[in-house]
Amino acid sequence: MKLWDKGYDIDRFTEEFTIGKDRELDVMLAKADVLGNMAHLKMLHHIGLISDGELKDLAQGLKDIFAEIEQGKFHIEAGIEDIHSQIECLLTRKCGEAGKKIHTGRSRNDQVLTDLKLFTRTALIDVLQQVTSLFHLLMEKAEANKDILMPGYTHLQIAMPSSFGMWFSAYAESLADDLLMLKAAYDMVNTNPLGSGAGYGSSVPLNRTMTTRLLGFGDLAYNSVYAQMQRGKMEKNVLFALATVATTLGKLAADVCLFACGNFGFLRLPDRFTTGSSIMPHKKNPDIFELIRAKTNRIQSLPTQMAMLCANLTSGYFRDMQLSKEIYLPAFKELTDCLFMTEMVLKEIELNPLILQDKKYSYLFTVEEVNDRVAAGIPFREAYRMVAEKVQLGEYRGDTSRPLHHTHEGSIGNLCLQQIREKFERHSSEWKPEQVWRAEAELME
Amino acid sequence: MKLWDKGYDIDRFTEEFTIGKDRELDVMLAKADVLGNMAHLKMLHHIGLISDGELKDLAQGLKDIFAEIEQGKFHIEAGIEDIHSQIECLLTRKCGEAGKKIHTGRSRNDQVLTDLKLFTRTALIDVLQQVTSLFHLLMEKAEANKDILMPGYTHLQIAMPSSFGMWFSAYAESLADDLLMLKAAYDMVNTNPLGSGAGYGSSVPLNRTMTTRLLGFGDLAYNSVYAQMQRGKMEKNVLFALATVATTLGKLAADVCLFACGNFGFLRLPDRFTTGSSIMPHKKNPDIFELIRAKTNRIQSLPTQMAMLCANLTSGYFRDMQLSKEIYLPAFKELTDCLFMTEMVLKEIELNPLILQDKKYSYLFTVEEVNDRVAAGIPFREAYRMVAEKVQLGEYRGDTSRPLHHTHEGSIGNLCLQQIREKFERHSSEWKPEQVWRAEAELME
Amino acid sequence: MKLWDKGYDIDRFTEEFTIGKDRELDVMLAKADVLGNMAHLKMLHHIGLISDGELKDLAQGLKDIFAEIEQGKFHIEAGIEDIHSQIECLLTRKCGEAGKKIHTGRSRNDQVLTDLKLFTRTALIDVLQQVTSLFHLLMEKAEANKDILMPGYTHLQIAMPSSFGMWFSAYAESLADDLLMLKAAYDMVNTNPLGSGAGYGSSVPLNRTMTTRLLGFGDLAYNSVYAQMQRGKMEKNVLFALATVATTLGKLAADVCLFACGNFGFLRLPDRFTTGSSIMPHKKNPDIFELIRAKTNRIQSLPTQMAMLCANLTSGYFRDMQLSKEIYLPAFKELTDCLFMTEMVLKEIELNPLILQDKKYSYLFTVEEVNDRVAAGIPFREAYRMVAEKVQLGEYRGDTSRPLHHTHEGSIGNLCLQQIREKFERHSSEWKPEQVWRAEAELME
Amino acid sequence: MKLWDKGYDIDRFTEEFTIGKDRELDVMLAKADVLGNMAHLKMLHHIGLISDGELKDLAQGLKDIFAEIEQGKFHIEAGIEDIHSQIECLLTRKCGEAGKKIHTGRSRNDQVLTDLKLFTRTALIDVLQQVTSLFHLLMEKAEANKDILMPGYTHLQIAMPSSFGMWFSAYAESLADDLLMLKAAYDMVNTNPLGSGAGYGSSVPLNRTMTTRLLGFGDLAYNSVYAQMQRGKMEKNVLFALATVATTLGKLAADVCLFACGNFGFLRLPDRFTTGSSIMPHKKNPDIFELIRAKTNRIQSLPTQMAMLCANLTSGYFRDMQLSKEIYLPAFKELTDCLFMTEMVLKEIELNPLILQDKKYSYLFTVEEVNDRVAAGIPFREAYRMVAEKVQLGEYRGDTSRPLHHTHEGSIGNLCLQQIREKFERHSSEWKPEQVWRAEAELME
Repeated sequence: MKLWDKGYDIDRFTEEFTIGKDRELDVMLAKADVLGNMAHLKMLHHIGLISDGELKDLAQGLKDIFAEIEQGKFHIEAGIEDIHSQIECLLTRKCGEAGKKIHTGRSRNDQVLTDLKLFTRTALIDVLQQVTSLFHLLMEKAEANKDILMPGYTHLQIAMPSSFGMWFSAYAESLADDLLMLKAAYDMVNTNPLGSGAGYGSSVPLNRTMTTRLLGFGDLAYNSVYAQMQRGKMEKNVLFALATVATTLGKLAADVCLFACGNFGFLRLPDRFTTGSSIMPHKKNPDIFELIRAKTNRIQSLPTQMAMLCANLTSGYFRDMQLSKEIYLPAFKELTDCLFMTEMVLKEIELNPLILQDKKYSYLFTVEEVNDRVAAGIPFREAYRMVAEKVQLGEYRGDTSRPLHHTHEGSIGNLCLQQIREKFERHSSEWKPEQVWRAEAELME
Repeated sequence: MKLWDKGYDIDRFTEEFTIGKDRELDVMLAKADVLGNMAHLKMLHHIGLISDGELKDLAQGLKDIFAEIEQGKFHIEAGIEDIHSQIECLLTRKCGEAGKKIHTGRSRNDQVLTDLKLFTRTALIDVLQQVTSLFHLLMEKAEANKDILMPGYTHLQIAMPSSFGMWFSAYAESLADDLLMLKAAYDMVNTNPLGSGAGYGSSVPLNRTMTTRLLGFGDLAYNSVYAQMQRGKMEKNVLFALATVATTLGKLAADVCLFACGNFGFLRLPDRFTTGSSIMPHKKNPDIFELIRAKTNRIQSLPTQMAMLCANLTSGYFRDMQLSKEIYLPAFKELTDCLFMTEMVLKEIELNPLILQDKKYSYLFTVEEVNDRVAAGIPFREAYRMVAEKVQLGEYRGDTSRPLHHTHEGSIGNLCLQQIREKFERHSSEWKPEQVWRAEAELME
Repeated sequence: MKLWDKGYDIDRFTEEFTIGKDRELDVMLAKADVLGNMAHLKMLHHIGLISDGELKDLAQGLKDIFAEIEQGKFHIEAGIEDIHSQIECLLTRKCGEAGKKIHTGRSRNDQVLTDLKLFTRTALIDVLQQVTSLFHLLMEKAEANKDILMPGYTHLQIAMPSSFGMWFSAYAESLADDLLMLKAAYDMVNTNPLGSGAGYGSSVPLNRTMTTRLLGFGDLAYNSVYAQMQRGKMEKNVLFALATVATTLGKLAADVCLFACGNFGFLRLPDRFTTGSSIMPHKKNPDIFELIRAKTNRIQSLPTQMAMLCANLTSGYFRDMQLSKEIYLPAFKELTDCLFMTEMVLKEIELNPLILQDKKYSYLFTVEEVNDRVAAGIPFREAYRMVAEKVQLGEYRGDTSRPLHHTHEGSIGNLCLQQIREKFERHSSEWKPEQVWRAEAELME
Repeated sequence: MKLWDKGYDIDRFTEEFTIGKDRELDVMLAKADVLGNMAHLKMLHHIGLISDGELKDLAQGLKDIFAEIEQGKFHIEAGIEDIHSQIECLLTRKCGEAGKKIHTGRSRNDQVLTDLKLFTRTALIDVLQQVTSLFHLLMEKAEANKDILMPGYTHLQIAMPSSFGMWFSAYAESLADDLLMLKAAYDMVNTNPLGSGAGYGSSVPLNRTMTTRLLGFGDLAYNSVYAQMQRGKMEKNVLFALATVATTLGKLAADVCLFACGNFGFLRLPDRFTTGSSIMPHKKNPDIFELIRAKTNRIQSLPTQMAMLCANLTSGYFRDMQLSKEIYLPAFKELTDCLFMTEMVLKEIELNPLILQDKKYSYLFTVEEVNDRVAAGIPFREAYRMVAEKVQLGEYRGDTSRPLHHTHEGSIGNLCLQQIREKFERHSSEWKPEQVWRAEAELME
């Protein structure tokens, strides 16, 4: 707590204060930084600021570094403050003075933003893949369990018949919708800021269209001032998109925690996924879903963290943005861990097929009785009054084994799983990650 | 404050507590509620639960109510708790018992959600139109003032040359990007929840595909449980989309407040748009932009308000959602007011064309000197060191009238206004509001 | 939505935009504004800037206005923008030119802050009184129901025996702790900003110690710059203090919603406090507690709203602060309504005395079995293992009528109600509202 | 990112997912955990559940562990999930079977809460000490620079004369007020939860009054259910208290960033505390204060993170609370680092004594001219009109060397530094940390 208590070194303290967690977090940006360097290098050569020989040397140097990163051998050395310095340093060691030329027409500001965008592009694709995997599991579970009825609740009061098919596919359709925000975030990310410099461009005759193509970006972030405005804005928008997925997962986790409660008993978690109590020998706690609930809640609070960082700041870069990395970068793993964990446990979850045999659920069928009367020509409001009177007088006896005839789209008798699948397809079809992979591969060839 | 101090009526207090601001806010949903009723009515007739005669009467009744709303004559009567009851009550007065049949196969839950979605669809289109209008003004201003230079700042330190053309078009491109989130929100909104009942569908053989078509929705919210999950989720997502626009406006307002400061003097607000001080006779305060900053900050905090309402709630409707209206419905006017106000003032804003004549801005050109040396073949890092030394020794003299040769995409010499326009077009082209207008018109014909 | 569609009047729109909801909200500040005026007036007379005759006239004028406010006859007239102008206008109508002298040595900035502080002081005392009232009800309920056992849950899993006495007094002790934050907020509020002017004091030889005494403030906000910094900070701190009470209420409401669920059935809400469903005749929904949950969640999100308004703003007044009123002023009634509603319903709530007869709660007693063994000398970890084995093998049979011997402080057998009462007393004893009432009464005599 | 891609081990993944950062963070709780163990041990001996011999062995074991922690030799071993297990494990290694008895009558829930409270108590005292140190520096600076005038701004428009004395002492008085919330948080923290078990107490005849005394707590958290409710609530309240200090620091940092801007030039940061630009050789950026602004903004967002975790959760422990550690524990160092950094830089900051010589500040004196006329008997509103007219006609010439006669409390001529010092004393006098140190020392003797 008190490293300054005695004998602190103010310069070292200052250095640590300003570097913060950059050295630790920046490793996530290593590949992206090399990609950005390579594109910038080729462009500088194209406009004549790098010679053929320098190009050859530097490109080889970058490829070597890239290989080291892929082999897990890369780290940021003590005394080097961030990923950009580390890679420039390695490059200069390998290629000498030429290594210093690569920063021509570039600033730390557009460099780090390019890195963050390249990182994010890949990370969002990972999220998409995890979401897709969970979506398909939910759909399988829905299909397999569409005939297991369960009570539906409103106001946490026993309301009307539902089913596990309905329940699983509800979350599947929710994920399908979450792709909309994810894609909007992706499209904003997938525009090239490289060449915007410190936020006011450069008098160097850069060819930004070329780096856009080389890096596989969908478009340019044209205006240099705007490109820098994306810092903070990008993080906030992407975090919100992650938060939409997190919201879906969090609600699912809340349901699981409730349904696993002894007073409900709708489902059972496999022992390997529960934990015990240090004092109560009978406990099997759904800790995993409680943690998913907590983690997804935290993810939901991150856009506000970003908003607080940026609020009332004028245009132009501020160092405040450095802190965005601490908020932003860990969120991807946090979310994908939750997606993965959810999928693992749902695969093995045990459902109770006999829930409705408990007579406390007989009230589930009052609406059916009302609807029977409506079908017989009695106005809805009148039919409602008649059944309500029976309930009031204690004369109502619901039949929990009563056959159900729900036929409309999205009802327990007609889940529209195929249409939900098509919705998911539609919402995920335009990502085209293979174009990104191809561009990155060609760049590093 | 203390209405219960003496002689309070607990039942009346309870009623007021539970109704909240519904009677006031629900008026915004009036047209939407009639549209939803009309679609549900026609569908009930189609499936045989409403006779030809009833259809004719009820449709006419709804048209009459719609006309009253359009003429501004509509209000929610004392003693009636919400928009749904008001319209059902009017209908029953006009058409007798048949009016009660219209609630067949429907719940308040899907009804209010349908209303909110129809309202939001229109409201988002209004936002789009305001954004479009401001976008074009910013682009005109950028074009007209592309040659007026201003200092660009990083860390709020004088950094490099920028221009008013750059500044205006930065915010234009930002708005272009904000359309991405708006459209994602719109697409999520534009799916039909009608027929999902209280969240578990209905045994009435509804035809939800028909109401989807009648209401001009792009798709169904299929799963009934998921349809209800959209309550809260929809509000949060839409509010976040509004917040992206608000973020852009807020930063613009922050810039204006700074640039209008006497220590900057980059621009002047017309007198009609400034306010004075009650004690300082010389003050011309940029209150409008301070209020825009504040209002847009508040809008940015609304998604968290929604997240707090929903956090850890299990699936199924909860009355908690009623409060979402208070958070959600006023946000649209708040944002469009800010958009409109920004546009009005920017139209008349006066720019200072002589900013760079002040010699404190001479440092703006140090990068140019570095780049001159780079162009002459000196490695960037070395050129940088040379100029830094001159600055250090106090020998640096920047020439603020120096001609600038910025040629790359998005630099002050090449603003790419046409490309930014095309980006905006691309991001707004798929809304197709005319299809919505047509569907609504046909439904009410 | 679109008041500017055609024929809008830009000046009127601007006026409405800048005034916002001030005219509506400022009525809450009416009494406070008169009090502040009276103190300032007497002080100006004391330092010789107001004559004896003027003092007499103006003081009488202010008393008349105060009486009108107390009689509910006061409102802000059309064309007058806020409470300060309204009262100055009334005063000038009554007293002529002298009315204009009252603004000497004062600014709108210190005036509105003084008003807000005087308003808040009273409003916090109201909160204290409501909290006290609810506290005592909870303690009575705890005392009366200390022998009704209920299951205690951890992880929403059946855990160990609890009781209604434990449950009620838990919330009582929580309220006792919430007074700590309320008092800290109150102490910060209760310092006099009057005389700090626009934030830089005045060359008028004001006597701020005198106005401090007249207004019954506990101390001065000395530094004029700091006094103005309290704007925004005060609102945020007070809102957080309100939020601590809201958090307690919200959790209580969440418990009630769960315990009223058919799967729990621990308690029943009186019919007058439940609402039905428009389609399910059997429903009795706990809407009131759902709304309390929602409203208290919203209150919890308000400090962040304030933080967003203020983030990154430098010192000195900004018009942004005007918006704080919309966030701040309504929160007091929202909270006291929730406090009152909670108290009303809890008074009549029906508890189920036979909960533990349901055999699903037999696991509640595994810890007792472990403790029996520990008492017999077996190490805890070993005793735990033995009982766990019985549970595992299905051999465990808990006896839900087993007598319990919990003796330690705060256990179900020893609730320490007297100590909790003393804690509450200790945390509320230093408010001394009567001193405030006396100062205000003397000032207006 | 994708550790599950191939060959993942689901059980290991699950373990890592549920342990999270506990092993890393829990080290901060090591001393607290030993203290809690020692108090529990002595109490168990006192009530006869631990023999004299066991007491002696176990107490010595705990002392040895404590010594290791103080010597920095302590860590959590691989394969051990948290601090509680680590210490119990060490103890059992040292003392055999007796080590297992120490968990009698205790649960992980009350144990971790006790640890968090003991940790927080110390950490808050550290914050108090840092705040005190910064307070005194600000007061010295205020005293030393009370005659250096600077412009005061409202709406970021040049408003009225201020001074560095005013500016420094404003932040000092702000810190004095922040102690109110800190103390309220401290008082809530300083109550003993040990013995509340999993949240429902224990049938073991614990003596909680004894552990309260041994641990130096000011009072008990009596009710066992409430004691557990403090989890989450404590973190939120303490974080908010930290956030009030953060808010003060953040505004100070925002001021420094503005005043260091070339357009202001009110102050200069020493070179060792500025950073340069990678492309602009003239830059000296106030990165430290930008980072303080960012970090203090993040701290301000943490209470909302906690609120999101807890929202709508019913009473009783949930695993969700584990995540609170990640949000909570690092905040103390983050804040004290900012306090320390602020102090270090302010010590060496260079102020510009000649600011007002710039004629753009002549408008600062319009209020003085108005007040001159008021002093001469002209009503304020009339005097205002006269000066405003001069400004309007361009005839106003302020004299920036005009002598100022501000005499009232808190004005630039009368800063009331002594009173502010007394306020700080009053707000810090009741902490009595020495009582805590003494209790902890006696316990470990």
